Amino acid sequence: MQSREIHLKRRPAGDTVPEDFATVARELPPPAAGEVQVRNLWMAVDPAMRGRMNDVRSYIPPFALDAPMEGPAIGEVTASNDPGFAPGDLVFSRLGWREAFNAPASALQRRDRALPPQAYLCYAGMPGLTAYAGLLRIAALKPGDVVFVSAASGAVGSIACQIARNKGHKVIGSAGGPEKVAFLRDVLKVDGAIDYKAEPSLTKALAREVKAIGAEGIDVYFENVGGDHLQAALSLANDFARFAICGMISQYNLTEAPVVPRNLTMLMTKRIRMEGYIALDHMDLEPQMLADMVAWHDAGRMAQAETVYEGIDKALDAFWGLFTGANIGRTMVKLG
Amino acid sequence: MQSREIHLKRRPAGDTVPEDFATVARELPPPAAGEVQVRNLWMAVDPAMRGRMNDVRSYIPPFALDAPMEGPAIGEVTASNDPGFAPGDLVFSRLGWREAFNAPASALQRRDRALPPQAYLCYAGMPGLTAYAGLLRIAALKPGDVVFVSAASGAVGSIACQIARNKGHKVIGSAGGPEKVAFLRDVLKVDGAIDYKAEPSLTKALAREVKAIGAEGIDVYFENVGGDHLQAALSLANDFARFAICGMISQYNLTEAPVVPRNLTMLMTKRIRMEGYIALDHMDLEPQMLADMVAWHDAGRMAQAETVYEGIDKALDAFWGLFTGANIGRTMVKLG
Repeated sequence: MQSREIHLKRRPAGDTVPEDFATVARELPPPAAGEVQVRNLWMAVDPAMRGRMNDVRSYIPPFALDAPMEGPAIGEVTASNDPGFAPGDLVFSRLGWREAFNAPASALQRRDRALPPQAYLCYAGMPGLTAYAGLLRIAALKPGDVVFVSAASGAVGSIACQIARNKGHKVIGSAGGPEKVAFLRDVLKVDGAIDYKAEPSLTKALAREVKAIGAEGIDVYFENVGGDHLQAALSLANDFARFAICGMISQYNLTEAPVVPRNLTMLMTKRIRMEGYIALDHMDLEPQMLADMVAWHDAGRMAQAETVYEGIDKALDAFWGLFTGANIGRTMVKLG
Repeated sequence: MQSREIHLKRRPAGDTVPEDFATVARELPPPAAGEVQVRNLWMAVDPAMRGRMNDVRSYIPPFALDAPMEGPAIGEVTASNDPGFAPGDLVFSRLGWREAFNAPASALQRRDRALPPQAYLCYAGMPGLTAYAGLLRIAALKPGDVVFVSAASGAVGSIACQIARNKGHKVIGSAGGPEKVAFLRDVLKVDGAIDYKAEPSLTKALAREVKAIGAEGIDVYFENVGGDHLQAALSLANDFARFAICGMISQYNLTEAPVVPRNLTMLMTKRIRMEGYIALDHMDLEPQMLADMVAWHDAGRMAQAETVYEGIDKALDAFWGLFTGANIGRTMVKLG
């Protein structure tokens, strides 16, 4: 079987350019003993991949040069030389950025057909677990909580909105631009939506949406943004609110000192708990998360929130699309 | 019995001046039915009293004009017209700012003689409970944790240092000036002490003290200050550190936008939990706190960290002393 792969040719300086990469075609031999041959159906891209293109030590090693990059992928077994897998099996791997591959059986995790294959890269994958652990464990969501989600049209935020809604909560989401706000209302079916780019004061906008749903304030904040979003959430928090700190994208490339939030003292007066977390620490929740996701999918209450690019030739466009702010939901490449 | 009382004569504008107050002498009649007569031994002052001098609604009502102010006091029953109390009983009340008073029995709480009377205004009173609840419940102190305390020479911080030390932890404290730092080392017996006024970088100072005790970082931060102290604590935090947010005194009178902390994103990368709290929500811990305090006192391991003024005539000096930054520990007035 032939496979095309995207290789990293050199370490990018700043923004990546086409010359940093190469598309390489190769003929796959039959799988060796203990190996499985997989044809990828979908791969996902995320901004963290940019970090792995640098030669910097982190909790995950950098991409090798002149080798295919890596990333989450879901595929179908086409040939197996291992007793644990058979042709037709649906498998998750970290071996994206390629159309097909041979790999040791240990690199694969079987997935069942209860969900569409790409769901395992989205609401039934790490983005799903990130949203699920943040809301249910870190924020300890309880009946009646009003939930505010920032970056609500993003890969994780879009799932957080749906989990909270499916658990019976009122949900307010914030995103940038009318198209994303329409997506929040029409697809994610949030109770309140804020276009932060159109609001002179995010705090006033959140106060307005809180009032519109007949609430006093918010009980849970699913934090992806930081800065003025955190300030607004503190301002509108009810006593004993819980903030799950999943990301603070406004703070990552800050060159000047932050001037917000100005109201961290509300942590005391309102007895707020803020907790940062990483989904990898909460893998034990995966079976419970998958069971809920299958039930919600079957009931038609879990939308596949995604921006899809077609074919390995568009994989770099998908990656670059992450940085324009135009993509909605998880950014995926359909490979098979 | 005669009593002198400090009355609020008018609502102060900005800093309080002697003309805002009056010292009033009065003759107490014998206690009426259901009343108890108490001679105060000690009263304590705290900065929150300034807020109650304003006519502003809060969770606690403002002081009345032309009446004695209120505050925590410990006294001895001198006459009783209620079956629940007898002369000689040690009683806690909110009826400070006066040498003696008659009050309904319901305004009094009996205290035993296991501790020196003034301890019930300090480590066995609300400051003690504040430190205890913050460390043990909010920060969930566990064996081996390294503890950092800001405003460590203050009423609450000085107790937090001692609780942590008595529970077997390494403790680093921060305070302003050589006298306070000597107090941290000699009286509170902390393992590391930082004079924040003498350090160009609090983060570097904390890193140095952490290294000096052979630790990698801090596990618990008892937060009284905010701003650069919070930034240093985030920088030196170990993974899964817990921050009990008791106060943020650097933030209360901020006229410009805060420029620190610049590293709130460490909440995620280090999975830090920050939680604000108010001791009144944790009164259920009082019996356990008292038992520990008596045991530590009996073992000679609980210092009375206090600045003492003598006599009701010095009560306003005690109050003004709170705002000069000179006082160490709890600020108290010896009345009896």
